[in-house]
Amino acid sequence: MRKNSKETIITAAVLLFNTKGFAGTSIRDIAAKANINPSNIGYYFDNKLGLLEHCLTTYFEHYLEQIESALPLLEESPSACLKRVIESILYYQFSDIHMSRFIVREMSLDSQTVREIMSTYYQKEKYYFHVIFENGMERGEFRKLSPAYAMIQLKGQLSMPFLNPHYITEVLHVFPQERYFAEKYLEHILSWIDAAVLENKQVAIS
Amino acid sequence: MRKNSKETIITAAVLLFNTKGFAGTSIRDIAAKANINPSNIGYYFDNKLGLLEHCLTTYFEHYLEQIESALPLLEESPSACLKRVIESILYYQFSDIHMSRFIVREMSLDSQTVREIMSTYYQKEKYYFHVIFENGMERGEFRKLSPAYAMIQLKGQLSMPFLNPHYITEVLHVFPQERYFAEKYLEHILSWIDAAVLENKQVAIS
Repeated sequence: MRKNSKETIITAAVLLFNTKGFAGTSIRDIAAKANINPSNIGYYFDNKLGLLEHCLTTYFEHYLEQIESALPLLEESPSACLKRVIESILYYQFSDIHMSRFIVREMSLDSQTVREIMSTYYQKEKYYFHVIFENGMERGEFRKLSPAYAMIQLKGQLSMPFLNPHYITEVLHVFPQERYFAEKYLEHILSWIDAAVLENKQVAIS
Repeated sequence: MRKNSKETIITAAVLLFNTKGFAGTSIRDIAAKANINPSNIGYYFDNKLGLLEHCLTTYFEHYLEQIESALPLLEESPSACLKRVIESILYYQFSDIHMSRFIVREMSLDSQTVREIMSTYYQKEKYYFHVIFENGMERGEFRKLSPAYAMIQLKGQLSMPFLNPHYITEVLHVFPQERYFAEKYLEHILSWIDAAVLENKQVAIS
């Protein structure tokens, strides 16, 4: 029951944040949407900022786990590892598109909370990617590249469908909430990796 | 004087929107920041929504002009044309990074205003890109590709530095407000085009 109630609050909150914005949503709105007593929200999260921090840390703990689970592949092949990392991140983001949309929008703000999250989780993510890129270049599987610029390009591609789902639906007539899209989009990002990052195009994801 | 005052209002508004959000900024805040009488804002824009619409339409009118100015290159070479379009969009966005940041964040919302802008300007942008992609494929300069997916990847890369300047600065230690970054980042996107979009890598920007 408790677990359910906590999840219900989070689901309701994220839907409201995505439509009315974080600042435009009150604890009272969330309670009404979740059909619970406002005091329950205080019990679990203290206040709206506590709820935000809970969403961010929970999301990024699992996000990093996705990357970490692919790292053992590094020894075998940096390119297989990089592709697995990208696949894991993308499917993780697709596993809860509302939450992912909220997170990518929220992380584009310049706030104290965002700075703290960046300095822990994004620093760690950067470290993992640097290890993969450096390893790939050393072993001759990757072209000589700038890890920082490659990350900007990669993260831009990974976040686009969650930032702009209505653009993708209404202008491009593609449906980002469907499983088919996730698979197809992954293929396109991996083709970019093959063509622009890897030295040798023959290496496929294991 | 009038022109100046209008520009002053817009500059002040965009700075406030980027820090306090559109909903969190009042006409009074903008007037105080711009050091003018609030009634001036009403005179030029009616209200805050009028100011938003002015920013969006002005921005996208010039945005489309950037694309249109590169289209005559299509006859000569679709790949040169595509590269020129990308260069023009990127430098246009860099020419006012605060405004661009505001625009890309605002356009990721799902509002009536955003829908209207999308259905005019983004539809037209999509049309131009489709013409370039189709032409490039027909003439054998481009690989067989899905224009929709290529646009998602391209727009993700083009908007990333404006959505996440503090991530780029504080985590990656690269400075997106510098001219050097714009030039370097353009090179990276064009390398992606060379590797992932073009059939033949020898075609350089004219």
